[in-house]
Amino acid sequence: MKTVRDILASKGTDIWSITPDATVFETLQLMADKEIGAVLVMVGGNTVGIFTERDYARQVILKGKASKDTPVREVMTSRVVYVKPDESIENCMALMTDKRVRHLPVLDQSRVCGVLSIGDVVKAVISEKQFMIQQLENYITSG
Amino acid sequence: MKTVRDILASKGTDIWSITPDATVFETLQLMADKEIGAVLVMVGGNTVGIFTERDYARQVILKGKASKDTPVREVMTSRVVYVKPDESIENCMALMTDKRVRHLPVLDQSRVCGVLSIGDVVKAVISEKQFMIQQLENYITSG
Repeated sequence: MKTVRDILASKGTDIWSITPDATVFETLQLMADKEIGAVLVMVGGNTVGIFTERDYARQVILKGKASKDTPVREVMTSRVVYVKPDESIENCMALMTDKRVRHLPVLDQSRVCGVLSIGDVVKAVISEKQFMIQQLENYITSG
Repeated sequence: MKTVRDILASKGTDIWSITPDATVFETLQLMADKEIGAVLVMVGGNTVGIFTERDYARQVILKGKASKDTPVREVMTSRVVYVKPDESIENCMALMTDKRVRHLPVLDQSRVCGVLSIGDVVKAVISEKQFMIQQLENYITSG
């Protein structure tokens, strides 16, 4: 089974982050520009939270807050679920299901080196299946 | 490989929908109450669109609209990607990856009979793997 490291090798290790004092509105703009569904909230090199589209849909207007006046730290998810680079895709899937999260920041020692989305995981499962089919075809044609 | 029908059999066939004239705010309240990330926009029994957390994050405040004044029809996704009940989970995964969607309404003849989320698909892949392991264990212990 593939690992987190394999996915990062193909998707890249870009990390998009914002400071806790940024407004929700600024955070949404960054997410739209980068075409991402979640962004890390960081102070210096330390992750203090994650802000997702789910947080936006649940924690802002429904709680009487306005996105232009609310700092992201007030509405972010502070308990971040991480994975390590050598974690299997299978464990990532189980973690996403158990914890009901769709993004997993990847922690290498104490440094974040990428973020996996549930879409990345599904894509990896498909590409693994295609690879297995290819291997079987090679085996048959060379037999 | 499991099909859409198998997933619906375990998750249920509840469908949450809203009318096109409902405000975005009302739609978000429904999504929070039902703990869902997308809702169908329906007129009578016909689906005219889908509204997701992604639509909310991209199409409302960033476009200068306010959720209490905007009807959901203005910001919903009108081109809905459907699957049929006998579609394989594998094809659902491929479709979600290709079309970059995280929800697939299920169309049985012309009636929507459920909605699959990317989380449901991942859960099904895990449960299928666990079933295979169980089968192997049974085979070994009975051998």
